[in-house]
Amino acid sequence: MKFELTILGSSSATPIFERNPTSQLLNINEKYYLIDCGEGTQQQLMRFGLKAQRIDYIFISHLHGDHYLGLVGLLSSMHLNGRSKPIKVFGPPELKEILDMQFKFSMTALRFPLEFYPTQAVKSDLIFENTDVKVETIILNHRIPCTGFKFTLKRRLPKIRMDKVAELAIPVEHRQLIKKGFPYTDKDGNIHQAEELTSPADEPRSYAYCSDTLCDWTFIDQIRGVNLLYHESTFRHDMLARAEETYHTTAMQAGEIAKRAEVKQLLIGHFSARYRDLNPLLEEARLKFENVALALEGKTFEIL
Amino acid sequence: MKFELTILGSSSATPIFERNPTSQLLNINEKYYLIDCGEGTQQQLMRFGLKAQRIDYIFISHLHGDHYLGLVGLLSSMHLNGRSKPIKVFGPPELKEILDMQFKFSMTALRFPLEFYPTQAVKSDLIFENTDVKVETIILNHRIPCTGFKFTLKRRLPKIRMDKVAELAIPVEHRQLIKKGFPYTDKDGNIHQAEELTSPADEPRSYAYCSDTLCDWTFIDQIRGVNLLYHESTFRHDMLARAEETYHTTAMQAGEIAKRAEVKQLLIGHFSARYRDLNPLLEEARLKFENVALALEGKTFEIL
Repeated sequence: MKFELTILGSSSATPIFERNPTSQLLNINEKYYLIDCGEGTQQQLMRFGLKAQRIDYIFISHLHGDHYLGLVGLLSSMHLNGRSKPIKVFGPPELKEILDMQFKFSMTALRFPLEFYPTQAVKSDLIFENTDVKVETIILNHRIPCTGFKFTLKRRLPKIRMDKVAELAIPVEHRQLIKKGFPYTDKDGNIHQAEELTSPADEPRSYAYCSDTLCDWTFIDQIRGVNLLYHESTFRHDMLARAEETYHTTAMQAGEIAKRAEVKQLLIGHFSARYRDLNPLLEEARLKFENVALALEGKTFEIL
Repeated sequence: MKFELTILGSSSATPIFERNPTSQLLNINEKYYLIDCGEGTQQQLMRFGLKAQRIDYIFISHLHGDHYLGLVGLLSSMHLNGRSKPIKVFGPPELKEILDMQFKFSMTALRFPLEFYPTQAVKSDLIFENTDVKVETIILNHRIPCTGFKFTLKRRLPKIRMDKVAELAIPVEHRQLIKKGFPYTDKDGNIHQAEELTSPADEPRSYAYCSDTLCDWTFIDQIRGVNLLYHESTFRHDMLARAEETYHTTAMQAGEIAKRAEVKQLLIGHFSARYRDLNPLLEEARLKFENVALALEGKTFEIL
């Protein structure tokens, strides 16, 4: 099942050096989930050949402009381009007021249902679940209420044992049934229980999105062992005082979090406008945790 | 005195084909006046090497998203980049509510004074005047209240007559005084009045910005003879019914308006997403009025 993340923007606060404010597109089983929607997100989607109309779910972490100012434009374009299927928007309750006011003054009556699901930033919640994935909030520590999101795929089916397939000459059309737990009767009439013919499924894959936040250890158990952790790394560690003052994290702290949480891979982003060259941030995070990448625009990460 | 217009965006409704929604930057005597501010305007300013902090005046025509959704982001970036000098924003009264609500929820207290001047779309007003320019609203005919803006430079000083300069050997340092109306005493003690030594100043140059509007003849006298008219041309004339239904103008109508208003040059823009190639719109407007140009992004037009 496809589970991959494309970076649409990774600048903090202001767009700069051709870097756009935060937005990410998660493709889960060919369905699109948008995470944050900074100004220019719809232009970025076009730039990378990603169809906005395929987005069915939008998650907004908090109400700093660099994380949501592209939302009204994106929804307006969906409307003008003839969308009829519903969209689900998850975000702080005040986001609904912002949307309502702007659609009211522009006299826009959206042609598609906008389902709004308010989040709260006090206690982690399961906020969404379908056959592919469940989504929980992560309570971040920022100047205003802010949540991250953890996407966990549903448990996979067990794997068929290829030694048994060979031994019993199990036809292709039976294998899916066996994975789903049905017993198999071989050509001699012997019944084999599914458990004998399969090995346990892999752990379900997961992605945790943490932006923006002060370096915080309270949610470490929640992100433990995720396949991919995106964590903001606004500053280098020599700017720790500034990071703390503005409720942000340094690259070194992000590396330390990834290490302690024993994640598989770390992705850093939300880069301050003071850094034109991002490699020093990457190198700093690597001092603590080896498997790190920069959240560069247009780059796609398969979540393995 | 510099009087030139740079196009930052000229797409209608939705960004497409690398075209951004509407925004224009007017440079009057090295001061920046921003006209409309669609999503991505701050990115466009950066792209074309224009410093956002030099903008002191912002004019918003109406509250359709493609004309103002970039404003909160632009103001936020000015704030984060340390602006302290005031900014003047002119636009519909509801724009202030939109700004206030978004700054409230993001807990942003702007570090610079934002002076808001509400416009009304019922009757043309003189809304601003300084030593360089006066700005009047143009009452447009759109689905929601919408004003254009007419920028008229202040009258220039009269021109010194070069034949008199030669005849009377007028030194350079006296010429500016004569232009300002002071009499000149020549080397024989004869007094010459300024009127004898000068010829009348050129007509003050002007720029009229008309977007978005149904083709409307009520403001033709107000835009008569302007040096540059920007008029929206959302559709080709074969889409007249659609233009009327959506309160927009066709390229042919824009040409006809320019002709009847006897403007010096016409600039067309606000192109529908249905046109990848814009030349047919240009050719259509030229059927009615010869001196037409397309409002292409990044292009600068000197207003002569």
